[in-house]
Amino acid sequence: MKKENISLKQLAKTLNLSVSTVSRALNDHPDISEATKQKVKTLATKLNYTPNLFAKGFRQKKTNIIGVVVPNITHYFTSTILKGILEEATLKGYKVIISESNNDAEKQIEMLNTMLQFNVDGILMSISKVTRKVDRILKVIDRVPVILFDKASNKIPCSQVVINEEEAAYNAIEHLINIGKTRIAIIKENEYSYNSERRFSGYLRALKEHNIEVDEKIIISVDDISLRQGKRMANLLLSLKTRPDAIFAITDSAAIGVIQTLKKFNIKIPKDIAVIGFSNSLSSTIIEPMLTTIDQPGEKIGATAVKYLIEDIENPNELTNKTIEIKGNLIIRDSTFKAY
Amino acid sequence: MKKENISLKQLAKTLNLSVSTVSRALNDHPDISEATKQKVKTLATKLNYTPNLFAKGFRQKKTNIIGVVVPNITHYFTSTILKGILEEATLKGYKVIISESNNDAEKQIEMLNTMLQFNVDGILMSISKVTRKVDRILKVIDRVPVILFDKASNKIPCSQVVINEEEAAYNAIEHLINIGKTRIAIIKENEYSYNSERRFSGYLRALKEHNIEVDEKIIISVDDISLRQGKRMANLLLSLKTRPDAIFAITDSAAIGVIQTLKKFNIKIPKDIAVIGFSNSLSSTIIEPMLTTIDQPGEKIGATAVKYLIEDIENPNELTNKTIEIKGNLIIRDSTFKAY
Repeated sequence: MKKENISLKQLAKTLNLSVSTVSRALNDHPDISEATKQKVKTLATKLNYTPNLFAKGFRQKKTNIIGVVVPNITHYFTSTILKGILEEATLKGYKVIISESNNDAEKQIEMLNTMLQFNVDGILMSISKVTRKVDRILKVIDRVPVILFDKASNKIPCSQVVINEEEAAYNAIEHLINIGKTRIAIIKENEYSYNSERRFSGYLRALKEHNIEVDEKIIISVDDISLRQGKRMANLLLSLKTRPDAIFAITDSAAIGVIQTLKKFNIKIPKDIAVIGFSNSLSSTIIEPMLTTIDQPGEKIGATAVKYLIEDIENPNELTNKTIEIKGNLIIRDSTFKAY
Repeated sequence: MKKENISLKQLAKTLNLSVSTVSRALNDHPDISEATKQKVKTLATKLNYTPNLFAKGFRQKKTNIIGVVVPNITHYFTSTILKGILEEATLKGYKVIISESNNDAEKQIEMLNTMLQFNVDGILMSISKVTRKVDRILKVIDRVPVILFDKASNKIPCSQVVINEEEAAYNAIEHLINIGKTRIAIIKENEYSYNSERRFSGYLRALKEHNIEVDEKIIISVDDISLRQGKRMANLLLSLKTRPDAIFAITDSAAIGVIQTLKKFNIKIPKDIAVIGFSNSLSSTIIEPMLTTIDQPGEKIGATAVKYLIEDIENPNELTNKTIEIKGNLIIRDSTFKAY
């Protein structure tokens, strides 16, 4: 039903560039050289390529549906974002279709294509952590406005609504340093997790700015961060010749696993080892001692993502790629309070 | 765009009956007398009333969209049901639109009407606890197939997929009796909560069958069951001249509030007072002692509701009102284990 234009793929093939490069060149992404941008834009003009949302004008009708793709709907933080999305969308007269990628890159693409078949006006997406190749996502972005939220990627040129992950982690580590901790371990995800890597950057910067040496032995990466992994990694950290005096787990569930293990070994929290999580989940106030953590305002993230998506939908000629950071606040509780 | 038929409302007005009575009469609801059923059906035939799904045949096209209305999307149990709904619907080639009523009866109706405007093929609904008048919901049922799940109502004639609430609560109370408890308090919601009332029935039946006298002083009803209310009601129960030796809170969050309060007063759990919750939430294994509770298989409830809804959508002439009970299992943990 839609008028077909020359595609990103055709541009890429002609120029012998990847679809990703061409898309980013057209969107003035800073990673792409001016020379390449010039080359891509010249060909795009010549072939009458209609970038992104200009194509929208050819659609038969606006559906007032927003598509949402999330990795896991049962994740509490995700459900608070969905709440914000539903409320803001309803307020603005849009309906929402929610689907789940189950952290499966194939299913994620399938869901995106379903959304397109459904003729959604735009898509809100939190990308699956197994997303390593983004070419197929870029093709979707070429068709309708997309906003990434929470789990974003710097390889995808579109607006993104995220927590100030780096700064929030920096604040958490600085708090540990302020209460006298100097040997601070981190339990993070592997390098494919965008959020984890940004939190890790904040960790590194805080250590560096406070002249604390980085020790690879207490930097632990796991594939799947969970309560169970928190327990396992706490055991691993306790087996070291020189134990850490604080552990920053980049999710609350892992931090809770850490606390449960430390208690099993009668380690005093926070005196011997302080613990910080990330997300302010419901369980963070149920565990004893209560967990110091970073509160992520999920509803605000969801509402903000909807606001920017609707702006993009309604003003297709004014598309810019913004990164909107929502502030996550450090909540100090007993797992770090009064360490000395 | 739809052909309008004589409505339930018109039938009700002509017969001087409520819309609810007419709808239930047409659906052979056991609460309605045979005489009334006969009267309603005769007029319906005379006026060529097309009940329920027969109307569906007049629709322009099948949309393959299922609408879902839930009171609160951030509730963990609800999110597991949604996961089951999304997975089963995807498998069967249906898309899902999710909306939230925020436990607001007006918003619930607004959402249902939005779903209808959207031309959904059917609706899955967990009703808001403030739903006291169901007439407006009955009008929706008159237009498309509806299945209620989790929070159901015996005033609404349609298939329902629910936990075996009564039996599950019975099993919980019997377990308390088996570990030697005889003065068992219940913290429940007010009488407008369908689930709470069914759990309360199970409580009463267990006491009766074990010849334990019911004491109104330890039957506590609250409007909004929450962790905070659990704490308040535990304080109230502790202030009684004769304290209970066990507390059944009909949600995990309230049960966790109870445990936190008992610990504050150094009451031994389960020796002095045992505690049971309901739902097997994430926090039920984080609290110490870990909470005995009833596991509610949310994904199974969601998948089953989708299955029955699609049956109704695809076989509009074979509509029957079934109640499908999904078994909730008692999970025995430290808050009741080894009481003596």
